[in-house]
Amino acid sequence: MAFSFTIEKKMRGLGRAGVVHTPHGDILTPAFVPVATKATVKALTPEQVRELGAQVVLANTYHLYLQPGDALVARAGGFGKFMGWSGPTITDSGGFQAFSLGAAFGTGISKLLKKSDELILPEAQADIEERENEAEKKAARLAKIDRDGVMFRSHIDGSAHYFTPEKSIDIQHNLGADIIFAFDECTSPTEPIHYQREALDRTHAWARRSLTRHQERKSEQALFGIVQGGRHEELRKISAAAIGEMDFAGFGIGGSFAKEDMSQAVRWVNEILPPERPRHLLGIGEPADIFGAVENGCDLFDCVAPTRNARTGTLYTSTGKLNILNSQFMQDFSPVDAQCDCFTCRTYTRAYLAHLFRAKEMLAATLASIHNLRFIIKLTEDIRSSILHDTFERYKESFFKVYIH
Amino acid sequence: MAFSFTIEKKMRGLGRAGVVHTPHGDILTPAFVPVATKATVKALTPEQVRELGAQVVLANTYHLYLQPGDALVARAGGFGKFMGWSGPTITDSGGFQAFSLGAAFGTGISKLLKKSDELILPEAQADIEERENEAEKKAARLAKIDRDGVMFRSHIDGSAHYFTPEKSIDIQHNLGADIIFAFDECTSPTEPIHYQREALDRTHAWARRSLTRHQERKSEQALFGIVQGGRHEELRKISAAAIGEMDFAGFGIGGSFAKEDMSQAVRWVNEILPPERPRHLLGIGEPADIFGAVENGCDLFDCVAPTRNARTGTLYTSTGKLNILNSQFMQDFSPVDAQCDCFTCRTYTRAYLAHLFRAKEMLAATLASIHNLRFIIKLTEDIRSSILHDTFERYKESFFKVYIH
Repeated sequence: MAFSFTIEKKMRGLGRAGVVHTPHGDILTPAFVPVATKATVKALTPEQVRELGAQVVLANTYHLYLQPGDALVARAGGFGKFMGWSGPTITDSGGFQAFSLGAAFGTGISKLLKKSDELILPEAQADIEERENEAEKKAARLAKIDRDGVMFRSHIDGSAHYFTPEKSIDIQHNLGADIIFAFDECTSPTEPIHYQREALDRTHAWARRSLTRHQERKSEQALFGIVQGGRHEELRKISAAAIGEMDFAGFGIGGSFAKEDMSQAVRWVNEILPPERPRHLLGIGEPADIFGAVENGCDLFDCVAPTRNARTGTLYTSTGKLNILNSQFMQDFSPVDAQCDCFTCRTYTRAYLAHLFRAKEMLAATLASIHNLRFIIKLTEDIRSSILHDTFERYKESFFKVYIH
Repeated sequence: MAFSFTIEKKMRGLGRAGVVHTPHGDILTPAFVPVATKATVKALTPEQVRELGAQVVLANTYHLYLQPGDALVARAGGFGKFMGWSGPTITDSGGFQAFSLGAAFGTGISKLLKKSDELILPEAQADIEERENEAEKKAARLAKIDRDGVMFRSHIDGSAHYFTPEKSIDIQHNLGADIIFAFDECTSPTEPIHYQREALDRTHAWARRSLTRHQERKSEQALFGIVQGGRHEELRKISAAAIGEMDFAGFGIGGSFAKEDMSQAVRWVNEILPPERPRHLLGIGEPADIFGAVENGCDLFDCVAPTRNARTGTLYTSTGKLNILNSQFMQDFSPVDAQCDCFTCRTYTRAYLAHLFRAKEMLAATLASIHNLRFIIKLTEDIRSSILHDTFERYKESFFKVYIH
């Protein structure tokens, strides 16, 4: 089956519930997309990912290109088959690394992202944190952007690589996901406006080149274009108009916003993008952000936050987050969240999870990841249901009455 | 239901197939028992452990006593309930730590165990290796043995603790396993014979005291006595006679042997032990050892080797072990073992596992542990079936025709 999108129900404003049809099955939207960075959702089997309600997973082109290599993944039948996931799949463009491996180093953005609560760029932050733990921490700029693409060095062995729009599309064809993304430049929010304009022109040129390469290769994969523009209304609108008139199967919304402005920036974009095609907000996964994104017209979201938080013991509950390493939980025989229907909450006590985290057992990460992903996916399922039943506002209000963030 | 043991079929010699009945279900024997050291089989959920055919799990009294504490585990309903395992459970006595935390340090045994292929004491080796990674690596003797018990220091916080037979039984009652063990001293094989005799007398006195304490407390748990005696025929026979005449529900065979002598030492013991009660060979789990143990009358075996090997990339196959980190496997799209029916072999290629290990993904440990445990459990199932069908010798021969160890 080819790719298509059906809108089932529209809310007042921009929000909607729908179905993304892909060759590997349907995705009921709004949908949260777990991240399988290196062709595995960290600490989980695909069966566990499926059981907690995930419909689709997203892998990172940059990571799989470097290890084990996209040619090998192609021989394995694509990354879905390689990792034992039979449902729909997504890859990003690798362009995000132009930001996280390039500009983020040398300008001190990583520190800024860490210290500031105002910036939403969880994927960037995540990536930078990972990178900062590595040997090349002190290397200067690892990536160099020019008109044609990005030159960067592998964080694994330091080897030099060059991504262009054509190369990104070729790699993503090898990786074989149902939904792939045009090559883009995700700028740092601290870059001056003139640089943002320049980068945006590049992103639009790269979008056209990505599309051309994709059309030449006659792939069944659905190519999404990415809207950028940072925190600037003017640039966001220019980008939505430019990308929106290209022949993409759907759209990604990338970049960074101030936390309180995220909903607004998404609204600027989605008021312009053609409504009949699906929209994927990249790197967003906090409960509050999901409500804001949905009511402003986004259909898909991916984020490493639920699994990354899980691995450090930060667990979502209907009343807010808790840190399972706090000593109060050592003797707490209630489930992580009495409202939650996940395997972890059905089977285990907080005391058991507290024990596993203290004993540094791998199962801690598994059980916590199952819970956090289920929490976010259940939230998205409930949001979808509330849209279908015209009760979104009521559901949102009841959620935030008890959820403290 | 109370504890009992039924022998279904006897082989020529000492071997047999049977059923151990416990309050939490039956164990078809011979059976391999996965180790859940700290109330978790490392990297696996209980569902995964069940799905790969495990019937029973064994947790370590020493570890759970120190973290999270046996009183807490009792409040949780016992370690089985705490960890979400509804089937039969076993705890060891904690006495083994008298060896691994005590004598092994200060006498250089840990090094000896590491370097020699002749000694079988996988659990000891495992424990020592674990310990050597910890901060207290250079501490002198951590444990001190006297007539009444063992004084030792926690490897977690250095606090002092004293185990006596009574204390071990009390802790094991709190942990709540179906099968528990008498407190024993597992000597180092390098200790002189006069020390071995002295330790054996202690082990027999501790066995009587363990039994008395257990009978006073009227627990439904089945208490097994442990036969020691090192590599000495005379001592093994003395121990089997002494422990065999006490009122235990079953027996453990502990200690260390030279690899080529293991079967013989087990035979010395099992020719004397009352045949109608089950026998658990402690710390054995290599394929060759399992055949030797079964044909010499053992019913149960536990060992950390399958999961420990798995975590380092050493995988069992029907033709012998392989190291998945060897570069030849990076492009190998066959399953780990084409003969194997486990989830990992049904779903994944060697190339995917090679990728996960190189990428240091947690799922590597999970998939490898599923495979290695299934391999050993399937082997034990096949051995049982061959006993029931009078084809044990033929099965053993066909197994070792292709399995290179």
